[in-house]
Amino acid sequence: MLFSDLTINDDKPIYIQIKKYLEDMISKGLLPHNSKLPSTRELSLILNVSRNSIISAYDELKSQGIIYSISSKGTFVNSHNNITNGTWNIDYKDFENDYIKIANDMDIMKSEIRWRAGQISFKSISPDGELFDMEELKKSFLNRFNLEGHKLLNYGYAQGYKPLIDYLHKYMNKKGVDTTNKEILIVNGFTEGLNLIISALTNKGDYILCENPTHNTSIKIMKTHGINIIPVNINENGLDFDDLDNKLKIYKNKIKFSYITPSYHNPTGMVMSPENRYRYYNLMKKYNIPIIEDGFNEELLYSSSHIFPICSLDNNNNGVIYIGSFSKILFPGLRIGWILCDKNLVDRLESVKRCINIHVSFLDQGILYDYLQNGAFEKYIKKTRKFYGDKFNFAKQCVKKYIKCEHIIGDGGLHLFLVFKNINTRELLNRCYKKDVIFMPGDLFYIDDSGFNTLRLGLSRLSDKDIERGIRIIGETVDEMKLDNLN
Amino acid sequence: MLFSDLTINDDKPIYIQIKKYLEDMISKGLLPHNSKLPSTRELSLILNVSRNSIISAYDELKSQGIIYSISSKGTFVNSHNNITNGTWNIDYKDFENDYIKIANDMDIMKSEIRWRAGQISFKSISPDGELFDMEELKKSFLNRFNLEGHKLLNYGYAQGYKPLIDYLHKYMNKKGVDTTNKEILIVNGFTEGLNLIISALTNKGDYILCENPTHNTSIKIMKTHGINIIPVNINENGLDFDDLDNKLKIYKNKIKFSYITPSYHNPTGMVMSPENRYRYYNLMKKYNIPIIEDGFNEELLYSSSHIFPICSLDNNNNGVIYIGSFSKILFPGLRIGWILCDKNLVDRLESVKRCINIHVSFLDQGILYDYLQNGAFEKYIKKTRKFYGDKFNFAKQCVKKYIKCEHIIGDGGLHLFLVFKNINTRELLNRCYKKDVIFMPGDLFYIDDSGFNTLRLGLSRLSDKDIERGIRIIGETVDEMKLDNLN
Repeated sequence: MLFSDLTINDDKPIYIQIKKYLEDMISKGLLPHNSKLPSTRELSLILNVSRNSIISAYDELKSQGIIYSISSKGTFVNSHNNITNGTWNIDYKDFENDYIKIANDMDIMKSEIRWRAGQISFKSISPDGELFDMEELKKSFLNRFNLEGHKLLNYGYAQGYKPLIDYLHKYMNKKGVDTTNKEILIVNGFTEGLNLIISALTNKGDYILCENPTHNTSIKIMKTHGINIIPVNINENGLDFDDLDNKLKIYKNKIKFSYITPSYHNPTGMVMSPENRYRYYNLMKKYNIPIIEDGFNEELLYSSSHIFPICSLDNNNNGVIYIGSFSKILFPGLRIGWILCDKNLVDRLESVKRCINIHVSFLDQGILYDYLQNGAFEKYIKKTRKFYGDKFNFAKQCVKKYIKCEHIIGDGGLHLFLVFKNINTRELLNRCYKKDVIFMPGDLFYIDDSGFNTLRLGLSRLSDKDIERGIRIIGETVDEMKLDNLN
Repeated sequence: MLFSDLTINDDKPIYIQIKKYLEDMISKGLLPHNSKLPSTRELSLILNVSRNSIISAYDELKSQGIIYSISSKGTFVNSHNNITNGTWNIDYKDFENDYIKIANDMDIMKSEIRWRAGQISFKSISPDGELFDMEELKKSFLNRFNLEGHKLLNYGYAQGYKPLIDYLHKYMNKKGVDTTNKEILIVNGFTEGLNLIISALTNKGDYILCENPTHNTSIKIMKTHGINIIPVNINENGLDFDDLDNKLKIYKNKIKFSYITPSYHNPTGMVMSPENRYRYYNLMKKYNIPIIEDGFNEELLYSSSHIFPICSLDNNNNGVIYIGSFSKILFPGLRIGWILCDKNLVDRLESVKRCINIHVSFLDQGILYDYLQNGAFEKYIKKTRKFYGDKFNFAKQCVKKYIKCEHIIGDGGLHLFLVFKNINTRELLNRCYKKDVIFMPGDLFYIDDSGFNTLRLGLSRLSDKDIERGIRIIGETVDEMKLDNLN
């Protein structure tokens, strides 16, 4: 403790002894530049001497420039003797590589308009936190914590928490996936999963086949790694297989991966039909292009029950790398997802995970595992499906009623996708913003600078009342724009 | 639900109707390849028909190759019509880039010998979980969860949980750091912090100045990004400033960053003196080389109280990027650390964090914040300092008593570093392994393929009894090797 080794004696005035002590500490470098000293009141209490002695000591030191005061902030050390003169101001922009530049340029949190209190926002597709089973989760925490808290709070394994991995194997088995030759790696959400794969298995300039439009975060991740994205059109009937055939013929051996979101695709909300899942898988198999399957929102499949992930077609083979996550319905704040793929590949990716951040929080994995295995999840998912299903159907009715658009796309999930004729949705957004309604302009999801006639409506966190009011306002604004276009 | 739309009528034999239904489902693609069918017993219960009808239906389908059985596993769909023939086996090694290759080659979890039950292991420097305040942490969870559980379980902000950020600002202020022009980014532990900085601010072939030896994970992170590491020697007196001057002269304008761990340096356990901290800072300032300061184990500074982080010398400037973490003493399973640096740089790094995994678990950040701010941490750290301090002193005495080595290095912390003359510590490790004692061979921490005469003893998780026994065995083995060398 500072001052604990100062003993005041009777040889010299007290303020001189205090001053000398501080001078020594500072010149020895034991009190760093700009560090804060106790107030005169505090120090008089600590040393049990009069406050005047402290004031005198500080005043002397101040006059020598050894300490300085800032009013209402305190007294600080000015050990200018120890630090060389002159400021040191680095412009870190000069250090930036392409990676951070692209990550910033494509960060929609920085470029897109922000929600203002009171606005109706159709931007988000985060789950409605009000649905979360708080009591069940609390129980899971307490149960897991009491069972093995010490273990969960210490370092764990890069691959993940074993009981959660085992649970997810069974979970995927139930979806028709034979995991015999596959393995699971726990990651910090879908985003980390995709980033891990792209950063480990591609090189700058590689080609990846993607649905167009697609998840904007996935586009961003690929672009930061210098990937050339080959767009395959989606139209109101789903993936355009003619366009796919065409792209396959053009790029053939150049294509490293294909990336696809078969269920409640973001942003269109479409669910790929079983027939098309086979067709897609077979095509990729034929061209020997491994599939990165985004398991996004698969858990919400409520209108159509028997649909299987594409990776269930890959049993005994290893052509599909599946990335799963519950984040769109369950606790995204926990950041837990998983990669399911070829066993040997998981073994290799595990070392990359260890390089990046060692492992996902074991406490979170333990809590999630407990919650999943005690049956609470199944009850929750039923409730959630019904809740979002009703919301989706209601919103779709509202759009039909209020908005004149060419196509209303989406089979369910947390969002709807609208396609217009001759309406620029950026302009529509600007106009709606003034009326306190915002949404996601569709171009954000397009690879090829198109989609300016589309928009995504995220529904998950809005009341029916706000959904109707917001959609009505968008509809009225579309009508205004049509009128303006005529004039 | 499967079978819920099957209504049995009297027109045809029951088994024919069931067979027809399954055939349709499979040919429509609604039952994926290899998916499991209910057992004949289950299905007879579901459909309320005799089990014999089911058996007949399954037998017919089997004879047509549409389903197949595996004994003791069940009956599965064989929709060979839907999936093209032939296996699909990708060798993902062909996809690997240098990043994943180096991450695997340098993964000591894969290359180093593993702990066997019953062995005394000096490998770990993880904290002793028995010291954790389980009750306090549980209280923090319940308190934070009740206050704002819904918020913590949903998506948060890339920069981190605001109350934790504010707490860490004050925490760093207390260490003499003026954070006015600086900002904090919460990351998944030190590892992610360093990886983020290196991946965003360097390019392949860049030069970084490092203490030699240094933290093996840091070496690995730099190597995966293709960095040329310039080693600066550490000897028994600490950083060799002559060597540093020399390297600065040789590489001068080529050096992008310097990386340093001033407190309880890993692996040597040395604490850099205040004078040397000034000297180092001034030198880097002079050469305009930003410092990446690893705040590793700073919290454990027990033998020497007034020592400040180097970033406290950087007030009003922006030459230091500090990476902090409590992981070596507090809850490493949570994976929480922070980067403190130039405000504008944090703003840019935030977008990279968003690209990598969006943000650190908000639940974990909330729990940690609650624990830190309620005062439990201060009590814990006092207890911990005493506990590890005693352990360290005891171990040092044991080494002096049992092991003949040239230098015993380390000022405290969770480990000791030994330097030998004419003893190869890899051979020593092999011999000790047979006697059920293991440690970290020192060469792992060296940049330049040296250090084969050094080793690190991690002490944190061993009892005094095991420490003494283990060190005695190492000492005896050293003696054996010396004898063998003479013969």
